[in-house]
Amino acid sequence: MTEPSSAAHRPTLEAVADRAGVSRATVSRVVNGGAGVRSSLAEKVLRAVDELGYVPNQAARSLVTRRHDAVAVVIAEPETRVFTDPFFAQQLRGISKELTAHDSQLVLLLVEGRGDYARVGRYLAGGHVDGALVFSVHLDDELPDIVRRSALPTVFGGRPDGGAPHTPYVDCDNRGGAREAVRHLRSLGRERIAHIAGPLDQTSAMDRLDGYRDVLPDAEPELIARGDFTPAGGERAMRELLDRCPDVDGVFAANDLTAAGALRVLGEAGRRVPEDVAVVGFDDMEPVAEQTSPPLTTVRQDIEEMGRLMARLLLRGLERGGALAGDPLDTAPSSVITPTALVRRASA
Amino acid sequence: MTEPSSAAHRPTLEAVADRAGVSRATVSRVVNGGAGVRSSLAEKVLRAVDELGYVPNQAARSLVTRRHDAVAVVIAEPETRVFTDPFFAQQLRGISKELTAHDSQLVLLLVEGRGDYARVGRYLAGGHVDGALVFSVHLDDELPDIVRRSALPTVFGGRPDGGAPHTPYVDCDNRGGAREAVRHLRSLGRERIAHIAGPLDQTSAMDRLDGYRDVLPDAEPELIARGDFTPAGGERAMRELLDRCPDVDGVFAANDLTAAGALRVLGEAGRRVPEDVAVVGFDDMEPVAEQTSPPLTTVRQDIEEMGRLMARLLLRGLERGGALAGDPLDTAPSSVITPTALVRRASA
Repeated sequence: MTEPSSAAHRPTLEAVADRAGVSRATVSRVVNGGAGVRSSLAEKVLRAVDELGYVPNQAARSLVTRRHDAVAVVIAEPETRVFTDPFFAQQLRGISKELTAHDSQLVLLLVEGRGDYARVGRYLAGGHVDGALVFSVHLDDELPDIVRRSALPTVFGGRPDGGAPHTPYVDCDNRGGAREAVRHLRSLGRERIAHIAGPLDQTSAMDRLDGYRDVLPDAEPELIARGDFTPAGGERAMRELLDRCPDVDGVFAANDLTAAGALRVLGEAGRRVPEDVAVVGFDDMEPVAEQTSPPLTTVRQDIEEMGRLMARLLLRGLERGGALAGDPLDTAPSSVITPTALVRRASA
Repeated sequence: MTEPSSAAHRPTLEAVADRAGVSRATVSRVVNGGAGVRSSLAEKVLRAVDELGYVPNQAARSLVTRRHDAVAVVIAEPETRVFTDPFFAQQLRGISKELTAHDSQLVLLLVEGRGDYARVGRYLAGGHVDGALVFSVHLDDELPDIVRRSALPTVFGGRPDGGAPHTPYVDCDNRGGAREAVRHLRSLGRERIAHIAGPLDQTSAMDRLDGYRDVLPDAEPELIARGDFTPAGGERAMRELLDRCPDVDGVFAANDLTAAGALRVLGEAGRRVPEDVAVVGFDDMEPVAEQTSPPLTTVRQDIEEMGRLMARLLLRGLERGGALAGDPLDTAPSSVITPTALVRRASA
């Protein structure tokens, strides 16, 4: 192991000055932007920097500049979920592309569970990143409070509930998209349309349920089953629905993974899709929606683009914080709601 | 947006001292461990800390303590690959469990490509983490050099090639496992056994090819096709093999994803598995190996456990670096090679 003591072998500013034959002050000026240093001298220094593999003491430097060129991403889910739900991979892809384009390092802070949030808070407050992108927050999560205490510029993915009124967020039109899904089922002549809801401690799931109720205000409570955005949750909920309402002829599932689980149970129960039961999902998740049997009619949201927008909003805020602080109008927070669109495939 | 300027709203040490009715020096002593402070005073301070949501200026503090309670993970692959190859999710699961058990934050540094390594190097050298876990390194990667220059304690996942002779690593017995796979195919009476190799710029792929050659030193070169550890690479290689050696009756694929691709092509070509062609993979990857058709005989390595071992080795090194520095024997690096085992399913 390169032991901690080997930090002593890291090339120093003095070593660079020796090698370049210049003063320490000159090296320092070059390393910090080169203002006021003749270009011939600066070149000598940069050559010595390359030859020695010198890295400035960023910890000390970032205390002065207060810039780390890094952004933390915190997902309020255990790491196992982060790596099994493709939603997160797609959102991270958008974030990664946008941050990379601005040479900012994506720092993904993984947790096993809520017991780890205090540690995440210490890292966020510890002067390691310029800002934070936070998503998949639940109603009773302490995370928004912890993030706020870190005093870092923050953008949420998904509308946070009440707790963080002045923090900008990026979300899709969950309620409008849900309305479109249910209207589509009704336009196919379906009369017993059920909803498999997502986890109702998340605003995306609440909004999609509200959209269902907007179109079917008189739907009986037994037509609404609770899922959890996973295929297993969709299976459980579909079994309940078939049990309670055997005459169900339409299902709006809160996301595509839920719909995939529901389709499996319908198949096992001998119900033909869409002839007996038409099914609509939400997300248009790659590759899920195209690989279900039959392929899934669903409400598309551009998840990768939402990730890109989150990163862009944060980076813009960081720039303004530097250049335009003091102009309250121009630095005012603004959230972004992206549109949704129904994608018709075989399932409805 | 919580603008950068709002850092001014972060509760200060002074505010805590005011609220607790003690001196700043007392607050500072309590926050930094409480040595020499009466417990009644310490309690007052901690109550004020809680009430105000005070977070010490960790950036300044970590410059003094040189501890961040955080470990960076760098995977030498684009983030898209990190989120599509379950190998990485499983290794990260082991790392996450072990780091969490020691209250150390897992900091995953994602990249789009090699162009981002310089930025990763700046983050590693920037005083943000106590050590680094690095995996999936390729022969011509600059990453090991960049990591070494950061002077951080480091453990590699997978044996690094030459470039980092004194850095400990965790790997499985790639060559021995490969030998077992090929011997198994031979024990089934197979006489034309092909190998679909992994990317030969990685030691794991090289070692598995060497294991194949150990058992079949006289295998004709056309029996060896090159894959890249992905299903698509396995498909391409299997098509080449069927073209070049139509009498092939056994395939040792360098990993399970490669085998999954090969099985698809064999199915399309009308070859029965295992009757016409027996196939063995490497990894015993969940859920891949059990879901192929037919289920895959493969060489098991405990990927999650390897992640745990990497983290344990690093944390042990960090402790020793603190407590036992100066005792060269006790701090000497040591790598770990984990055993492999053949798991027999229907494909061979």
